[in-house]
Amino acid sequence: MPQTTDQFITANQARFLEELYEYLRIPSISTLPENVGDVQAAAKFTADALKTAGLENVEIIPTDRHPLVYADWLHAPGKPTVLCYGHYDVQPPDPLELWNTPPFEPTLRDGNIYARGSSDDKGQVYMHVKAIEALMHAHEGKLPLNVKFLVEGEEEIGGASIAKYVPLNKEKLKADVALVSDTALYAEGIPTLCIGLRGLVYMEIECKGPGRDLHSGLYGGAAPNAVAALVALLGKAKDDKGRILIPGFYDEVAEPAAAEIASWKSLPFNEKDFLEKEVGATALTGEPDRMIFERVWSRPTLEIHGIAGGFTGAGAKTVIPATATAKVSMRLVPDQDPVKMFERFSAWVKANAPEGTVMEVRKLSGAPATVVNPDHPAINMAAEAFKEAMGRETVFIRSGGSIPIVGEFAHHLGIPTVLMGLGLPDDGLHSPNEKYKLDNFYLGIRTVAKFFERYGA
Amino acid sequence: MPQTTDQFITANQARFLEELYEYLRIPSISTLPENVGDVQAAAKFTADALKTAGLENVEIIPTDRHPLVYADWLHAPGKPTVLCYGHYDVQPPDPLELWNTPPFEPTLRDGNIYARGSSDDKGQVYMHVKAIEALMHAHEGKLPLNVKFLVEGEEEIGGASIAKYVPLNKEKLKADVALVSDTALYAEGIPTLCIGLRGLVYMEIECKGPGRDLHSGLYGGAAPNAVAALVALLGKAKDDKGRILIPGFYDEVAEPAAAEIASWKSLPFNEKDFLEKEVGATALTGEPDRMIFERVWSRPTLEIHGIAGGFTGAGAKTVIPATATAKVSMRLVPDQDPVKMFERFSAWVKANAPEGTVMEVRKLSGAPATVVNPDHPAINMAAEAFKEAMGRETVFIRSGGSIPIVGEFAHHLGIPTVLMGLGLPDDGLHSPNEKYKLDNFYLGIRTVAKFFERYGA
Repeated sequence: MPQTTDQFITANQARFLEELYEYLRIPSISTLPENVGDVQAAAKFTADALKTAGLENVEIIPTDRHPLVYADWLHAPGKPTVLCYGHYDVQPPDPLELWNTPPFEPTLRDGNIYARGSSDDKGQVYMHVKAIEALMHAHEGKLPLNVKFLVEGEEEIGGASIAKYVPLNKEKLKADVALVSDTALYAEGIPTLCIGLRGLVYMEIECKGPGRDLHSGLYGGAAPNAVAALVALLGKAKDDKGRILIPGFYDEVAEPAAAEIASWKSLPFNEKDFLEKEVGATALTGEPDRMIFERVWSRPTLEIHGIAGGFTGAGAKTVIPATATAKVSMRLVPDQDPVKMFERFSAWVKANAPEGTVMEVRKLSGAPATVVNPDHPAINMAAEAFKEAMGRETVFIRSGGSIPIVGEFAHHLGIPTVLMGLGLPDDGLHSPNEKYKLDNFYLGIRTVAKFFERYGA
Repeated sequence: MPQTTDQFITANQARFLEELYEYLRIPSISTLPENVGDVQAAAKFTADALKTAGLENVEIIPTDRHPLVYADWLHAPGKPTVLCYGHYDVQPPDPLELWNTPPFEPTLRDGNIYARGSSDDKGQVYMHVKAIEALMHAHEGKLPLNVKFLVEGEEEIGGASIAKYVPLNKEKLKADVALVSDTALYAEGIPTLCIGLRGLVYMEIECKGPGRDLHSGLYGGAAPNAVAALVALLGKAKDDKGRILIPGFYDEVAEPAAAEIASWKSLPFNEKDFLEKEVGATALTGEPDRMIFERVWSRPTLEIHGIAGGFTGAGAKTVIPATATAKVSMRLVPDQDPVKMFERFSAWVKANAPEGTVMEVRKLSGAPATVVNPDHPAINMAAEAFKEAMGRETVFIRSGGSIPIVGEFAHHLGIPTVLMGLGLPDDGLHSPNEKYKLDNFYLGIRTVAKFFERYGA
């Protein structure tokens, strides 16, 4: 009698970890030209692992930059198809001196795997792969449903190639639901499904004042100042309480269902800890009549990411700056339209540009918010699988961030995404000493396998 | 019978120019370590020229950085003493590729001497020196009054050494009036004395928000943003018309006398040209009920010289910045006190720092405005000399900038300064192709000599 998936996973834990270590040792830093070979090696490792797990039609698909890896197993007619997504590329590890152990030499400490990419996202990709292997083993070389894998190598640099690939391969990628494991549990021990992501419109504003930098003694008082003008403009964007004053900004904001709000209220949350340990400021900000979860998950934002202009070196220079720029974004929520919101913002900028200056607004990217109906059968079964694996009710949360691929899948393939992330909020993604809890690696393999078994039943 | 000063000047024009060329060939760039020897060579050249002109007690005075040059002639008992000031150091010439002829190879084109330092300030220092030589020659080895020279080599880098030297040598530098030629005529052909300079308080503001840069997806809406806070604060500093809203900002502002305003109104001024050719913006700004001369000469300002914070590279990064900084200054007018004004500004910043942020204001420098009474005998006689040399009434203007040495002389020596500059507004100080009009060089020698003759009569 063959082992059950759980038995197989338990019996093979040590090997799974060794294999994951091998994967993590490849410095597949997508942004650095000197790591191109490593990124390719990681693509090959991914493809080989998918083949070993029992998947078919494994392909390393060349792109303009880093390859995509595809694989499938489609021998469960009448059963649903799940499209598994992940990324095998990683962020640069610097500053290196802040790592306690080398970023590409995975090390186990206090139950955590320390390595760049451990949580984001190789550890979670490998969770999917090993779940397939366990299912294949437990189900005599078959899977309980159809699966497709699409793993990219450009997630940390914007995902241009997959964004091109998806709309051109709709038939090939056709599925009932996508499974993405690139997020975190709400907190340790709490089974969590993310069912909403904010959208994003990212913009650049350039302000032109005088024709050249002017001497502030000779012209100060009569000449426009590009920095001061940009500051005056952006200073009008919000009231003192953080409410955004762009006309129409909140017009299409959909409020979360009462049940969703109620479930957020039941989440363990310590505002003092959030302020002191996470934000590290003297006070929180934002709309006072909204709870923190609303502010970061279901309310749109206007954020200034950076500003530059004039003299900012050491000491004093009495210049009236000719130009100034700022990076600004709007996080969008359902049902805000990125195109319409960009137009509103641009119109507001033009209408409020201080006299003597010319403002230009450029859109760098735009994507709408995505929400998944928690009553969708896949979400439902994922929640049940999670509950079974972890022994408590699954919570439904949102994330204030954006995962562009979720939008691509929704837009081009017409499918929802199960966001089943096994990271933890303090995993240190993109930071030194990135970690992934070893128990969560195994737990994730079990949960993914349980989800597939339920969904294929 | 000896030549008159005018005759002597006319007879020696060619030699004066050759000597000035030699002076201009020394690349006495005070800010660059590799030019230390050149700066010393220029000090020596200055000292030698003063000696040759007939001055006594010539000294090259070592300082912490670049030497001061002192000289005097004090054999006119009962006559006034004039303290002549200038600087022999120059700005770096870059960008070199924009010069039509090399910056340290003086070249005559269209009646102008093109060279770094030609107008700012070697050409004007040399004007003083040659006036002395001419007077000595015409007055049989004597001068009509007492003179002291103090020429510095750090004007372009802040003048730290002379600022230290003056208060420690009050007796040595005792005089009735200072003569500074480091400014420009109001316009070509218009004899001009500057009788007012704005003061300056230069500050740095640092804003601290969250403890580290935060992900704007995860925290956006609830976490304070240091850039947005600094922008919100500075955006409140002025109303839409440019009026400054810091409490008490205008409390001690002294209005110019009606006669002064009237004379400004009589100056040739084309607002369209000022806007289009000088400022190069789409409109002028500032207090609408004030004429341009008031805005730049007799009204205080609040200027943002630069701002920096967060991500400003190419592309997009969704960060909530932890810190932001800005360089800000106030130009002061009579009777504003730099200490009091800094306190007011700091108090306003603290009172208006947006929630969740901490603002620190640091003062980098502070100096009050200086004005000279146009009825002072020296000013009067300088105006008469100018009128005689140029054949039309001398105009009295102010400058919106600050010349710190004028404040030092007023504060420590208790003397007013005659600001008799022979540059032109388009001389391109600190820019490529700096020039000095040859006629103004000779005209300046004549005018300075005439001033000394009148003042000593």
